[in-house]
Formats: sequence, structure tokens, C-alpha cells
Amino acid sequence: MNTFGHIFKIQIFGESHGDSVGVVIDGCPPGISINEDDFKHDLLRRKSGAKGTTSRKEDDKPQIISGIHNNYSTGAPITILFKNTNTRSSDYNFRNHPRPGHADFVTDKKFISFNDDRGGGHFSGRLTVGLVAAGVIAKKIISDINITAKLTEAGGNTNITDAVDKALKTGDSIGGIIECSVTNVPVGLGEPFFDSVESLISHAIFSIPGVKAIEFGSGFEAAIMKGSEHNDLIINESGTTKTNNAGGINGGITNGNDIFFRVAVKPTSSISLPQETFNFESGKPEKLEIKGRHDTCFALRIPVIIEAVTACVLADLMMIDNTKKYDIQRSKKTGI
Amino acid sequence: MNTFGHIFKIQIFGESHGDSVGVVIDGCPPGISINEDDFKHDLLRRKSGAKGTTSRKEDDKPQIISGIHNNYSTGAPITILFKNTNTRSSDYNFRNHPRPGHADFVTDKKFISFNDDRGGGHFSGRLTVGLVAAGVIAKKIISDINITAKLTEAGGNTNITDAVDKALKTGDSIGGIIECSVTNVPVGLGEPFFDSVESLISHAIFSIPGVKAIEFGSGFEAAIMKGSEHNDLIINESGTTKTNNAGGINGGITNGNDIFFRVAVKPTSSISLPQETFNFESGKPEKLEIKGRHDTCFALRIPVIIEAVTACVLADLMMIDNTKKYDIQRSKKTGI
Amino acid sequence: MNTFGHIFKIQIFGESHGDSVGVVIDGCPPGISINEDDFKHDLLRRKSGAKGTTSRKEDDKPQIISGIHNNYSTGAPITILFKNTNTRSSDYNFRNHPRPGHADFVTDKKFISFNDDRGGGHFSGRLTVGLVAAGVIAKKIISDINITAKLTEAGGNTNITDAVDKALKTGDSIGGIIECSVTNVPVGLGEPFFDSVESLISHAIFSIPGVKAIEFGSGFEAAIMKGSEHNDLIINESGTTKTNNAGGINGGITNGNDIFFRVAVKPTSSISLPQETFNFESGKPEKLEIKGRHDTCFALRIPVIIEAVTACVLADLMMIDNTKKYDIQRSKKTGI
Amino acid sequence: MNTFGHIFKIQIFGESHGDSVGVVIDGCPPGISINEDDFKHDLLRRKSGAKGTTSRKEDDKPQIISGIHNNYSTGAPITILFKNTNTRSSDYNFRNHPRPGHADFVTDKKFISFNDDRGGGHFSGRLTVGLVAAGVIAKKIISDINITAKLTEAGGNTNITDAVDKALKTGDSIGGIIECSVTNVPVGLGEPFFDSVESLISHAIFSIPGVKAIEFGSGFEAAIMKGSEHNDLIINESGTTKTNNAGGINGGITNGNDIFFRVAVKPTSSISLPQETFNFESGKPEKLEIKGRHDTCFALRIPVIIEAVTACVLADLMMIDNTKKYDIQRSKKTGI
Repeated sequence: MNTFGHIFKIQIFGESHGDSVGVVIDGCPPGISINEDDFKHDLLRRKSGAKGTTSRKEDDKPQIISGIHNNYSTGAPITILFKNTNTRSSDYNFRNHPRPGHADFVTDKKFISFNDDRGGGHFSGRLTVGLVAAGVIAKKIISDINITAKLTEAGGNTNITDAVDKALKTGDSIGGIIECSVTNVPVGLGEPFFDSVESLISHAIFSIPGVKAIEFGSGFEAAIMKGSEHNDLIINESGTTKTNNAGGINGGITNGNDIFFRVAVKPTSSISLPQETFNFESGKPEKLEIKGRHDTCFALRIPVIIEAVTACVLADLMMIDNTKKYDIQRSKKTGI
Repeated sequence: MNTFGHIFKIQIFGESHGDSVGVVIDGCPPGISINEDDFKHDLLRRKSGAKGTTSRKEDDKPQIISGIHNNYSTGAPITILFKNTNTRSSDYNFRNHPRPGHADFVTDKKFISFNDDRGGGHFSGRLTVGLVAAGVIAKKIISDINITAKLTEAGGNTNITDAVDKALKTGDSIGGIIECSVTNVPVGLGEPFFDSVESLISHAIFSIPGVKAIEFGSGFEAAIMKGSEHNDLIINESGTTKTNNAGGINGGITNGNDIFFRVAVKPTSSISLPQETFNFESGKPEKLEIKGRHDTCFALRIPVIIEAVTACVLADLMMIDNTKKYDIQRSKKTGI
Repeated sequence: MNTFGHIFKIQIFGESHGDSVGVVIDGCPPGISINEDDFKHDLLRRKSGAKGTTSRKEDDKPQIISGIHNNYSTGAPITILFKNTNTRSSDYNFRNHPRPGHADFVTDKKFISFNDDRGGGHFSGRLTVGLVAAGVIAKKIISDINITAKLTEAGGNTNITDAVDKALKTGDSIGGIIECSVTNVPVGLGEPFFDSVESLISHAIFSIPGVKAIEFGSGFEAAIMKGSEHNDLIINESGTTKTNNAGGINGGITNGNDIFFRVAVKPTSSISLPQETFNFESGKPEKLEIKGRHDTCFALRIPVIIEAVTACVLADLMMIDNTKKYDIQRSKKTGI
Repeated sequence: MNTFGHIFKIQIFGESHGDSVGVVIDGCPPGISINEDDFKHDLLRRKSGAKGTTSRKEDDKPQIISGIHNNYSTGAPITILFKNTNTRSSDYNFRNHPRPGHADFVTDKKFISFNDDRGGGHFSGRLTVGLVAAGVIAKKIISDINITAKLTEAGGNTNITDAVDKALKTGDSIGGIIECSVTNVPVGLGEPFFDSVESLISHAIFSIPGVKAIEFGSGFEAAIMKGSEHNDLIINESGTTKTNNAGGINGGITNGNDIFFRVAVKPTSSISLPQETFNFESGKPEKLEIKGRHDTCFALRIPVIIEAVTACVLADLMMIDNTKKYDIQRSKKTGI
């Protein structure tokens, strides 16, 4: 249940403070030019380091283990590892007094205390480095399509630097809103019903830790619009619409206009301020102070991850769309 | 790509004006008591008939074709058919001048004009009758869990009757907001990363025609809260939290508190008012008047569908959770 | 677990003495010409009626419920039903004294006695009518490829009529060997490792009731050949080989030579001769005489089913192969 | 397409002469005791070294990268790597004159010459080391079941040492027959139709390079038996049968008797003797002498791999069987 995709399939693995984290990408076509430098830009965007992000520093150097030869994809599964080097597990031990807002309590129950809880173990933002790596490859497959996500608000404020500064000073944390636009999208991606474009994108986006909401096009606003306002009028042969309330998707299928969606990211759960929690050993509430290193606003690091999983969805959909391609020729000849 | 679920799997099929629509449910355990009457209540809730819903009347009588014997599930695939009886296809012919907000344009392109376009064909709310039927069975599998969805706003108004009346008079349409609460949820459902509870529920919800947004717990509001406000404090041994900003889900896993989410449904695309569209034959814009029968506010019919797909997701997750159950005994003996 | 295929996916359902049996085919490309007559030939080949086959007569008329419009596939799921008309359930009641060689005992245990046991219920050769229907459509998708299966031996005898006659007279049953050749196969179908062509074909073939063995190319004979004898020498640019010990498959991938495999079908389990079994009510062994209607040599009816599932596998593989097609152009330009 | 399994899922990756080969195992329950020593025995059985196996020596030390903590499975994906240390790629270069019996020709075509062809690349027996590792874990999950595979014939000879010696002297290669017995199998594993036990086992077995045939129970022999001979008579309440012609499987479901199957492995394709092949550069046939290191009889190394994939299939089926377990209690109460 750690895999995603039908044809372009990703499997992620690893723990925050284990040996490594990584990703296996199955189904990548052969002949895609890929080298280690290609990953740099996006990995850097995900990386901590800016004000408001954790002081844990990982060099995030991708080790390509399989599936790439002479700088081209071979058609076999691509495996990419990222060693964990900068771990400080002594900071962590929350099994008996779980951190509010974290997965400590649920993972202890689900995995009957066998889960690796160092640094959140498998339930860590660290795992998203593999998603970004997969996204780099997916973006190459759908090279004509452009995906751009950016943080437009942090803590309700469009001046993001200010908002982060203020939160840093108080020892508290803030969340944010990320907007994602996809341009130059072909008409017809997406499958009827369960594999609608919204279904697949939301599935992927909600697997990013901390995401709590998504809306496509006019989104929640649509609920208060009239049909006459919300309907996007087609104005030319390419299907361009006058407005884009649908966010580029009708009936779950891309209509050729820009895909647009907004995502809400919650504030980081780990904060420096003391909080109350329940101690499962003593059976009583207690005060908790989280040491460790954490992001004041991890939403800063999410845009590139959103781009990555969106690229994975679209690469998969384009490849699925191709499954029918050879028949088009025949169909055109025989069709009604 | 019309299937959903890992173990409790649903496959829907059919067209709005074809012979029938229906569903195959694979993976239902044997011994679940099911008879035709069990479907009545939920099918009635989905059915048109109230003010603001279409005048197309289908009797929605489920025909159980397989998988149920002597009123119990047998363990073999369950197939349920719903005949289409009340179809008026002459109302429909939009291939050359697609209706704004509809899938007419994209399906014509995607299926190179071979799609059945009568009444929207496969891209019709009619298909959701199969989802509701699957939901009835899923609810029986997770019988200790209660799922309640209701329309809380239509056209931005909490007085829903008024809002619908007003829209009806103008020939326009309105959307709405649906809230869904799930109570008595066990701790530990959901799988790490790609099969987070939010991922699976959103995947299923966005396959319902007309849904454009979803938020869990405090949702978009989370983006403007501080960590100290958003974190839900655990107050007892069961993991009950003081607040429920997480919507009952941490790290993608249920925490035993109520699952809560809100869904935005757009206004019905078909409206009586004349609209502009593009005529692909003449190559020019033209005025379009949609006759047919349609809902003024199809959001009225969505709550039971939301309950149904949520039940399907939870039934699947509970069955997956069981895959590990027999090991718990052994693990407890051998464990650290 | 009643589905098969990645892109061209089939789901079968139904019970031998229930309302109907049928199949849903998801992933069929739009624009394939299909009408009810297209099914006649293959359904007739599967049908009982010849000497040595059961006297149960079903008209096997396919009812196309969805996915086909104006005699072309639409791209939406295709559902085909076959009504059961000629059922005599009173012949059947084997829960307490299971028939030797049948699934009576295992299904009663697996489905904790809730399984529909009339005529074998879901575990019946009747279900294969849906496979044949799916095969008719698959054959159209891979129309350049020819698949031919035939019964070459019955009861160890190449004079099949004689063998059947003899068995009929004694009240016993016989099995047989079916050989299948696939010609005009493109090079390169199949996926590395788990989706090797042999893996997928054998998976599909062993889902046909009564199959107990399969061998590709020289098969079991290969185990006694030397490498210098078994290796097929390539003799021209198309990859034609001098011999075909590999059965057209190297490393799990088609090599362009004919795919060839042989299948062993066991003798029909239901025989007129009295047999011993265990009575689970009395807790004692007892004599059992099976009335009902059954095939003396159901292997007679299997060739067309083998063709059908082989066609489904190849259609799926061709569509998967297409997922990479659009990249070939680019790769050729950029490649090493 | 390099993944296998529904719940207990394995994904293999790597190339013969690349950095490493390995496996990701998703869906392993938490609390299984696993340490590096557990892998030794089975890895050693697979390893080359005996007479008749290649002189390439890999230390086959498993590196556990994720999913195991304090010597117990955590419930997160388990990743195991095996470094390639002893590679001699200069021996290999067969793109233009493919080795008879190898995948050289098909992989070059399928992957449009982008495949890593060093040592067969992804199409190498080296990949099976990951299968064996997965098998070690699967065997622990199904610890009450015993799986034993052994080579019973090589080159048609039951005196295996002799047969290998003789082949070694001539520079030729031989294949063999492997028999596999599974004891203490619960009744009821396997799913109707497509996920029959034979379907899943054969799917997995044919993904092992070099396997060309499989038969269950009396297998090909069944085709010449009469029903009265082939039917296995049930002789007691546990469902024990007098004979085991079915190989422990009826209707695709385990019947509690031993699962038994036989597998044919072809002779190694690489032989020291000169062979003819086609040179795609010159467009002419030519003589080929294969240097490299290879097994005279790689069938010697296959039994443990057969056990491993069989264990993976059965672990998956047992976990799927559990999905229905909690309902049994309820069903028993409410059932007819």
C-alpha cells in the first residue's frame, strides 16, 4: 500500500533515522535521458535550510542503484536511494506520551509497538525526498507539460517572510496555502469515474504529510455560484474556455485548459512551546516539551513535492492514454 | 480504470440511456445478510423527486444477478443491475455544440466520437446508483461504524428549501456543501503514505460527478491556524482528543475520533437559461438552450453517495487491517 | 480476485444455476466494431451438444448491457450477460457428501457454507462463457495475431471420437491435451520478471476449471535436452529461429516466432459410476451416485476458452506495450 | 510490472552488473522476528559454487535498508539490497550477435537498445537473490506450512552428479526437473477463478528465468487417466484424500492435502561450445563462442527459488483469507 500508479508506478520506502530512504520507479519508458545532476534543482527546492525550516541537514545526494545506464533509462525499474546521515535519534522517544498532532499514537497502535519510532520512522517528511526524485523523472516523460506550484500564503499572510519570522519568535508554527497550475495539458487525460484526474491528483496529494484540503478550479467557491456563473463557455475549436472555474477538468477528464488546484497545509505539529498530552504509562495527562529539530513552516518545502506527485499522476495518465493510441488509426478507418 | 478498492473492490458500468447501469462487488465476505429491501432506504435518498431534482423518474429497483443466495452473500462477486426505463434520448445531441460545464467536449475527444452520448452516456449521475448499492453492502460489513452525510448549505444558504425555490424560479442552478461525520471508528485504519485515509476517501469522493473540493477536519482553516491551536491534545487512554482539527486522522491513519470532512458540489451544469457555446461544425460560437430534464440542485442527492463511497473505503481498509490480525497473537508472544 | 489484466481488465461473475453469468470488460479501446453476431462462432465452439458433452442446453445468447453503442465499443466498460435458462438444481446437493474431484468440500469450508452450491455455483464451467465473450473482443483488438487451440488427444488417444465413445459406454470420463499456437506475434510483448508472457498465460489458463498442467515450447522435454540442442538459432534479421524449443518466448518476452504451448485437462470429475466419499453428517464413508448432466470429456469444450484467455493476455500486453510508444520517437532522436 | 502479490507485495529491481540487485517487500505484518542470519541458509542454497554452477562468486550479504528495526518487522516496507561485487562486463557484448536461447535479441528490440546489456542486465538469474530474500520472510509468516523443493533429475538422469560431470566435460549444459511439496496447508486458500492457487503459483514460478513447464498433482498424466482413477476419494472429516492426483487443489482452492507440483527447467543457454547466430551488423550468420562464466546446470540453484516464490504466494493468500476472518464470528451467529 506504499505504491501508486498503474503503469508509471512508484514505491517508496525507508525511515527517517534508518539507513536510507528511497523510491523504486517501475514502468518508466526506456530512452529517457537522466543523470544525477537532473535531480539537483528540485531536491534543493525541497531541502531544508531557509529560515523557518529544520536545522537537520541532509546532503540529499541521489544514489542511482538500478534502471539507468549510460545516462538513459533502460526500461527496467529505477531505484534511487538517499542515505540518512544527519540523525539525532536521542531527541525522540514518544511512544508513551505521544506528541499532539503527530502519528505517534496511531502508529503505535496500528503496528502494535513494532514500528520504528525514531524521528517518526516511516511516517516522516523525510520520505518525500523519494517523491521528488520520482517527480523529476515524471516531468521528463511529460516534458511538454509545465507544472508550477508555489506557496501563496503562510499563516494566513501573503507576506511569507514576515509570517515565518513572527512564528519563529514565538516558538509556534504556521501552515500555508499552495497553488498549483499545470499548463499545456492535452485534452482527454483521465479515466471515467474512479480514475478521474481529481481523484488521482487528490489521492497523491493527500499522501504528502500535513495536507488537509484540496480544491480544483473555483473549489469551495463553486458551492455558492450559480450554474450560469460557474459554467465555463467554450470559445474556440481547441476547447479554450472563457473562464476556468472547472480547473481544467470536466467529468474527470482534462479539457485542455490549465489544471488548477489549491492545497491547504497544516502548521507543523512539532512546536517548541510546551503542550499537554496523555502519558500512557502513568495513565495521566502531562506536560510535553519537544526538543528535536523541526520546521516552523514546513509548507515552505511542499510546493516541489506537489509538483512531483502531480507529474507522476500525469505521466501515468499519458501512458495509459497511449494504450489506446494504435487503435485510433484503425478506428478512424472503420469508424462511423 | 472503473474499479476501486484492494480487497472490497467495486466495478461500475452502464450508460445513462443504455439498457442498465450496475455494479459488481468483488471481495465481499460470505455470510452477510442482504436482501432487496435493504437497498430501499439509501436508493430512495439518492432518488430524484424532491423539489430541485430532475423529473426523470427511475424506479431504481435493484436486480441481484449474482453473489447472493438465500439472502446471504456467498463470497462470490455480487452483481446488481438497475434497468433504465425512463429515457428520452431525443433531448440529447451535443456532440457538435457541447454544453458548458459538461463532459461533452472531453468525451468526444477522448473516445474519438465513439462514446455513447445519449444523456451523457457513461458520464452521468445515473451511474452513482451502483455506488449507493455497493455502499449498502459496505455499511453492513462495517456495521459498528456510523456514517452520516448531509447537505448543510445550498447556493451559500443554510435555508436550503428557500435557496432551491429561488433557483428554480430563475431557471438557474445552485451547488452546495455536504458535511460527513463518521463515528465509532477503530484506531489504526489506513495505510502509510499512498493509502492514507484522506487519499482513499478523496479518491472515491472525487469520482462522484460534480465534486470540486474536499477538506478534512479544520481543512483550509488549518492553513491560518498556529500549531499550538491546531494540535489536538490527547486526553485519555482511548486517544480521545480535546479538539478534532485533524478530522480523526493523523499521519493518514484513523485515531479513533470522528472522521470529519466537508465536500463542495458545483451547481448543476445543465440550466434552462440560454448559454453561449462553440459549434464545432460551423466553427462559430452559438446560443444553446438545453431542454432535457435536470436537477436544479443535484447536491441534494449527493449525501447518500458520499456515505456510500466512504463506507466502501472503510470496509476495504478494515479488511486490509485484518490481513495482519492473525500475526498479532504470535507477535504478542514473541515481541520485544 | 475475480479480475484479470492491467489495462484490458476482465471481471467475471455469476453462478451456474443463478440468474445469469457474465463479464465486465474494462479498458477496451473505443471504435472496435462489435455486434452480437460476432460472438456466435466462438460461443458455439464452447457450447455443449457434441457427443461427450453435457445434455444441458443453454442458448448462450449474449446480452450486451453496456459499453457498445451503434455496434462500436465506446471506451466505457462493456458488460455482457448470459441468462441461465436450463437449470435443474434438484440434481444437486452435495454439501454433506462432497463429490470426489469437485470443489464441493473446499468451497463449503472456504465460504463457511454460505456459498451457492447449486450446480457448483460460482465454481462451474458455466462461468467460462464470459471468458469466451471477452476473448471475442480481445481477438478484435489484436486482429493481426492468430490464435488456434485444438484438442489433439483425449484419454491418451489421438482418435478422439473413438475415445469419447468408449468412455460414454462405460459411464466413465476422460481428459485430454490441447495445443495452442499463436502466429504473427510482434517481438517484444511481455514485461520483465513477474509479467513474463509465460506467467500471464499460465495464470489465465489455470483459471479455467480442470486444467492441471502447461508447458511452453519443448516444455518438460527441455529438461532432458542439452543446451546445444535446446537453443534456437536465429537465422535472419526478423529473429526467425531454426527451431522453436522456446515456444516463441525468451526471457519472458515474445521473440516473434510462434507462441506454442500445450495444456493438460483432467477427466471430468462427475461420472455416472458409483464412487466412495465421506458423509460429513454421519461421519462415515458412503457410496455416491451422481445424477445430474455432465460432460464425458469436457476437454472437448476447452480449446476456444484457451484461445479466449490467451487473446485477453495478448491484448493487455499490446496495450501496455503501447504505453511506451510515444517515447520511441523522442528516444530515437535523443538516444545514444 | 515487476511487482507481485496483492497484500504481501514484492518489487524486485537491479541489474546483473549494476550497483546492486534487491527487493522491496510491502505488506509484511509487524512483529515478525527477522535478522540478517535468517537469510543465510536459503541464500547459500541458491548460491553458485557447487560443481556445475558458475564460477562468479558473490558474497550475497543482505543489506537491510528499511522496514526492520530491533530485529522485528515494523509494518513499513522492507528493502533488502545485495551489492554486485564480482562483475566482469567485458565478457559481454551481444547486442549485434545475440546468444541463442538468451533474451539478448528481445530485450534489444523491446527497450530499443537502451537496456543495460551487461551480463544480461535486468534479465539475469542474479535478480532471483531478491526473490529468495522475500521468500525467507514469507516462510516466517506462514511458519506452520512447510515447503520443500528439490532437483530430482538433471539431463534426464536421477544421478545428478554424474549428469553434471558429463555435461561439464563436453562443454554443453543440461536442465532438470524440480519437485515441490507443501505440507500442513490449511483448507480454503486461493480465490475463485483468476486467483486460483495454480494460477498464482504458476505465475510466480514462470517468472523464474529458465522455467518452461509446470504440472500440479498428476499433471500431464491426468490427461490419460479416467475420472474414476483420477478422482481423489475423501476418507475422513479433515478432507484427507486416498490419492492426491489433484495436487492438493480443487477448484483452485487448497483442500488441506499436500500441494504438489513439478517444474521443468531448460538447460543453461550459455554453453562453451561454438554456436551459430545472426550478426545484425553484417546481416549474415556467424559463429559465436561465449566466454563469460556460466552454470552448466543452473537447475541446481532453482529449488530454493521455487520455495521462495511459493512461500510468497501462500503468505499473500493467507493474508487475503484473513480479510474475511472477523466476519466469520458474526456470520456464524447470524448465518442460516
